[in-house]
Amino acid sequence: MINKSDGMSYAPKGRPSPVVKPGEFYIAAVALDHGHIYGMINGLTEAGATLKWVYDPDPAKVTAFIKAFPQAQAADCLDRVLDDPDIKLVAGAAIPNLRARLGIKVMNAGKDYFTDKTPLTTLEQLDAVKEAVARTGKKYMVYYSERLHVECAMYAGDLIEQDAIGRVINVIGAGPHRLNAESRPGWFFDLEQYGGILCDIGSHQIEQFLYYAGAKDATIASARVGNFNHPEYPELQDFGDCALTADNGAAHYFRVDWFTPKGLSTWGDGRTFILGADGFIELRKYVNLATNESGNHLFIANSDGERHLELEGKVGFPFFGRLINDCVNRTEIAMTQSHALKAAELCVKAQAAAVRIHG
Amino acid sequence: MINKSDGMSYAPKGRPSPVVKPGEFYIAAVALDHGHIYGMINGLTEAGATLKWVYDPDPAKVTAFIKAFPQAQAADCLDRVLDDPDIKLVAGAAIPNLRARLGIKVMNAGKDYFTDKTPLTTLEQLDAVKEAVARTGKKYMVYYSERLHVECAMYAGDLIEQDAIGRVINVIGAGPHRLNAESRPGWFFDLEQYGGILCDIGSHQIEQFLYYAGAKDATIASARVGNFNHPEYPELQDFGDCALTADNGAAHYFRVDWFTPKGLSTWGDGRTFILGADGFIELRKYVNLATNESGNHLFIANSDGERHLELEGKVGFPFFGRLINDCVNRTEIAMTQSHALKAAELCVKAQAAAVRIHG
Repeated sequence: MINKSDGMSYAPKGRPSPVVKPGEFYIAAVALDHGHIYGMINGLTEAGATLKWVYDPDPAKVTAFIKAFPQAQAADCLDRVLDDPDIKLVAGAAIPNLRARLGIKVMNAGKDYFTDKTPLTTLEQLDAVKEAVARTGKKYMVYYSERLHVECAMYAGDLIEQDAIGRVINVIGAGPHRLNAESRPGWFFDLEQYGGILCDIGSHQIEQFLYYAGAKDATIASARVGNFNHPEYPELQDFGDCALTADNGAAHYFRVDWFTPKGLSTWGDGRTFILGADGFIELRKYVNLATNESGNHLFIANSDGERHLELEGKVGFPFFGRLINDCVNRTEIAMTQSHALKAAELCVKAQAAAVRIHG
Repeated sequence: MINKSDGMSYAPKGRPSPVVKPGEFYIAAVALDHGHIYGMINGLTEAGATLKWVYDPDPAKVTAFIKAFPQAQAADCLDRVLDDPDIKLVAGAAIPNLRARLGIKVMNAGKDYFTDKTPLTTLEQLDAVKEAVARTGKKYMVYYSERLHVECAMYAGDLIEQDAIGRVINVIGAGPHRLNAESRPGWFFDLEQYGGILCDIGSHQIEQFLYYAGAKDATIASARVGNFNHPEYPELQDFGDCALTADNGAAHYFRVDWFTPKGLSTWGDGRTFILGADGFIELRKYVNLATNESGNHLFIANSDGERHLELEGKVGFPFFGRLINDCVNRTEIAMTQSHALKAAELCVKAQAAAVRIHG
């Protein structure tokens, strides 16, 4: 995040590493409600996707988007995109409670869907998505950016797979965010629309837990939300935390909040701590606090000693090329459908189980 | 912790800053089952206490202790200590489930008691301790060393008191420990004797939470224990975690474990994260991972920016002098009795509530 003044601040810059040639894999961007759409499209185009259309009912959002991605044509309606047989994948960052509805339309039109997280906000939406996935054979993929678009987080997955810390026992995630209330749209403060803090920014955390722990399912051990310091936004949950127990016994805890202080050099001091039986990993994703303003710091301790890996610009974002290949080859290398939707299910369940502890 | 080969490795070295003159405040050390007794006595003697007696039924423990504290006389029985009118305070590091019984004897003899944590292991012991405290008017104080004997942890309390991060919303603690199984006594692996991982090393964490959050009480939201990797010690819990909600709404989570890897430069990468409404504090207590082998690193971010304070040797250990003054003046500056016993109560309750998630 370099510059909060335009949408590209949501687009981590990687090295172009195309898996397809220009014109081989057409995509479209529809529903520009959250700035994450810039990161989603940047990741896909760096991986070789050809951006053809952009659509949003708000012309100002479309104009801003085309400034960043001048190759996109403005479509006059959603159907212009859905009816275009060239388009293989539609990316969207709708208001959270409208993401499932849009995705089902996209899949019904015979295209894969790539949505901003959180992918949905109710179990009814989840059921409808599952039905549409099964019926259409299309993908409902999710931009869990706090792993997929963070180099040290991707690298941590590789290290765990190579058994660098042994069997994963515990994952602790901290996902603090800067509120920037004045820059936020109305839906951001409407509980039904944003889905609650555990469902919204908590979805990153649950996805990471399932991934790092190699878990297929989990149960909610504890969930709490509160509004500690923003009575002017009564439906905002400025704090949430949750403990989950995975089907393989691994234990998760995460905290999410909107309390990043003014003096922090970035939008949030996001951390992940992964405890294994033979070592542990710490990720300092966006800043090495009071030490280095760059991100992507991975710390590991195991029988070999302690190491600090500075991974910014060293790992890239392999998820996007894998996703394109998955769409072309009908494989599930980037992410399985069941993983993407299990994280969604658990964040909805965590939200539903949450005890309000303040405000 | 410099050297695991003798008890003094448990004794952080501070600057002597006596609050009483030699011979003004006599103490004794009895029950040397845990090496923490070295830290307890070192802290008290640096603060001016005069060590008179040492007693343990095991002569080898007494001999080793006198090597570190040659001023101590070996007592031939516990009553020699309890019957000595000079002695104002008796410090003990008994096997955890025997700490209450010893403390009640000490208080019945008209002396204050300073026990290693965890101070007790059952609610029955708690009731008996409370009764004895009320009846005798004596103190049952606890060596919660991971705050009281850690300079950055003491400093964090001062910063919070000065409102450096605003109202405390969340505390996350990680208390990993190195197992060193071969150096541990038998009671260490006996559940009834050590009390369970949440009751034992979890007690540090709960005490810190109550202190930093300014809470008087809390409820257990979730508690989990497991034996993930040590089937040869079936009663060892090598992992535990717990979430508590304070009476003022603050949310706590802590993880404790015996998984410090061989390659870590110290016995555990203990951390504390304190989220306030206006900023946050991180403590890297014993090492700045893969960066600096010294301890006592305090990181703070608030509206003034990000800062890293290196506090080793800069704060000292004011708890011990305050405790001596409390004993002399019958005040509660170092720690209130209700705080010490509330932490004890909650760690016993957390242990009782714990779900076994593995092993």
